[in-house]
Amino acid sequence: MKQSKLFSKTIKTVDAHSISHQFLLRAGFINQLMAGAYSFLPLGLLVLKKIENIIRENMLAISGQEILMPALTPKENWQKTGRWDSFDALFKIEEYALAATHEEIVAPLARSVISSYKDLPLYIFQIQTKFRNEKRAKSGILRTREFLMKDLYSFSATEKELNDYYEIVKKRYIKIFNDCGLAFNKKTFLTLASGGSFSEYSHEFQTVTEAGEDIIYICRKCQNAVNREIKKDKCPICSSNDFLEQKSVEVGNIFKLGNKYSLPFGLKYIDAQGKENPVIMGCYGIGLNRLMGAVAEVSHDDKGIIWPEKIAPFSVHLISLGKNKEAEKIYKSLLKLKIDVLYDDRDKSPGEKFAEADLIGIPYRLVVSEKTLSVKSVEVKKRSESKIKLVKIDKINEKTF
Amino acid sequence: MKQSKLFSKTIKTVDAHSISHQFLLRAGFINQLMAGAYSFLPLGLLVLKKIENIIRENMLAISGQEILMPALTPKENWQKTGRWDSFDALFKIEEYALAATHEEIVAPLARSVISSYKDLPLYIFQIQTKFRNEKRAKSGILRTREFLMKDLYSFSATEKELNDYYEIVKKRYIKIFNDCGLAFNKKTFLTLASGGSFSEYSHEFQTVTEAGEDIIYICRKCQNAVNREIKKDKCPICSSNDFLEQKSVEVGNIFKLGNKYSLPFGLKYIDAQGKENPVIMGCYGIGLNRLMGAVAEVSHDDKGIIWPEKIAPFSVHLISLGKNKEAEKIYKSLLKLKIDVLYDDRDKSPGEKFAEADLIGIPYRLVVSEKTLSVKSVEVKKRSESKIKLVKIDKINEKTF
Repeated sequence: MKQSKLFSKTIKTVDAHSISHQFLLRAGFINQLMAGAYSFLPLGLLVLKKIENIIRENMLAISGQEILMPALTPKENWQKTGRWDSFDALFKIEEYALAATHEEIVAPLARSVISSYKDLPLYIFQIQTKFRNEKRAKSGILRTREFLMKDLYSFSATEKELNDYYEIVKKRYIKIFNDCGLAFNKKTFLTLASGGSFSEYSHEFQTVTEAGEDIIYICRKCQNAVNREIKKDKCPICSSNDFLEQKSVEVGNIFKLGNKYSLPFGLKYIDAQGKENPVIMGCYGIGLNRLMGAVAEVSHDDKGIIWPEKIAPFSVHLISLGKNKEAEKIYKSLLKLKIDVLYDDRDKSPGEKFAEADLIGIPYRLVVSEKTLSVKSVEVKKRSESKIKLVKIDKINEKTF
Repeated sequence: MKQSKLFSKTIKTVDAHSISHQFLLRAGFINQLMAGAYSFLPLGLLVLKKIENIIRENMLAISGQEILMPALTPKENWQKTGRWDSFDALFKIEEYALAATHEEIVAPLARSVISSYKDLPLYIFQIQTKFRNEKRAKSGILRTREFLMKDLYSFSATEKELNDYYEIVKKRYIKIFNDCGLAFNKKTFLTLASGGSFSEYSHEFQTVTEAGEDIIYICRKCQNAVNREIKKDKCPICSSNDFLEQKSVEVGNIFKLGNKYSLPFGLKYIDAQGKENPVIMGCYGIGLNRLMGAVAEVSHDDKGIIWPEKIAPFSVHLISLGKNKEAEKIYKSLLKLKIDVLYDDRDKSPGEKFAEADLIGIPYRLVVSEKTLSVKSVEVKKRSESKIKLVKIDKINEKTF
């Protein structure tokens, strides 16, 4: 894509509460419509789609079947579980609620398909827009009133099956967060949280950042963390009492629901002995917008964002200094190699171009100038490193990056 | 995908007002949550995603840049254009409106990027969820309270540029509807409709079906149609007076907005002479859910849906009669060939399997039975034809379909 055509404008200064918010606004990834609601501009949507695809592939890999449920949902379903009144952040319009989560919708939906133990286990997920009337919508896309969520629901006949699948999801979540650059056990920690009536604990994935609104205690011995809400003297996993207190943001959670939503909606199955039992449920969420914000929080320097390669809006940022036809040719040859490239063809000063490239944070920067052309080369620099190397134009290929 | 695992259940009888509604419900593509709100089950979501991708590719091909704007939008923006009060179907929650369309959001967004004639033209689109409080939500997914829409907006400096782009979009729409199986000038007609203050006409794409709520008059001479709301004695294109009256459903529309939304939001540009002018806008919509419903309306027989190949949930429906290991092998070899296959591995009667396959409507049916295996073959039948042919198992490849 040619940068001269890109629907985006970098901004010098913004009023923002967190680093991710500031850089994402300044680099033109998002645009604020109002408190807690953002438009994703082309660069931002590219990142969001890459995150979405990583999550989708991993959900399909653990037998998840993708569906899409409505955001507009009937009051009646929320009354059955008591959450019409108890869910503070629920947006209500007359007889409807805008779904803040989908247990109230997926349980009766599953009931229309499940009748026998032969129909179980079953795993369904969606990547869909959620609405929550957040009182504190202030840290950019870390906490918004509308956001994309991947919500996976599991339906099991036995507690053992739920427990086995729960562990499978846990492992996949670690892979997803690693792929997105939120390194597990370095930046993101498996955190014990309260489990509800069915299970002693639920698990959150918490990414350490000053912009977070949670407090977690990371066990220095086993790397597991506990959320402040359930903090005890000793680590529930290894009994160590050596904790590190950190601010963090919850990027995912997994929860054993048991029969909490099966009972109100009559979600039952007939077992091999002909007996009726409630289906045992689990739910597993990841907020995509927040994940993207968390990446910007933990992966940046003072000049801007440093996108991990798998979710960067483009792989290569080609910058032409001065006017030269060679840059256009290199751009076309990169496209031919199927390399994802943003081409800065604009009439701006080198200083401006470099500053904007650092702000946007694409993993590889290629500079074409009279100087580099005089030795038939381009300058290649990784966003995460300061080292610059010259590469001959006719030697540029997929392996350069 | 193995049909025994598919999250879906066919239904014998349903209470439905239109053919598409009936077949989509019965075949397990959609599930009704309440009037005007449907969940898309795995088969339905596969179709919707294929439609989405066809639309996206065509929007990118005409220089559209994809973004994503919020559904939750501030009252203030709708008050500026007067539509807070005049847009009947707008869902309102306190100080918010759930966007029914996005002119009120995209105009101020574009204002943050556009300042000079050098920033124009600009084309941006999104594929995003819209909400409308429809009083008559009854024909399944042809008219729902929540639906996916592709909305493209053009921003031009001159009327000529708008007109040129308008023609480009018109051509792309024809390609999109053809790709989705709503054959242009056979099933779908370019229809003149009222144009608002800026233009004499707008254009709708209307698909002829008894389930439609519009009435159009198709000129038998030039194949253009006019909507009843602007019907005159003669065809405005060729002056013929030979019309065919038809019921139809609007699957897309294109509209010259002029400065209608630029003025209230101060969306201006400085021209080459340094003079300030309002940006000239156009908007171009396609409802994805409705398009999917329209396809089922026009492409079916009395047994079920006949999906056009490009948007079918799967390309091939492999049916195993009785238990045999050969079917499983063929399934695996089809997957290896990257052929999209639904494999009916269930323990059901041939009659049930055939009836469900016809109801679901996948383009190619492959039957493996003792009889076909005795001649080392499978039976191949197109959903749209009655002819059956035997193909040797070792000769099955991409070209078989």
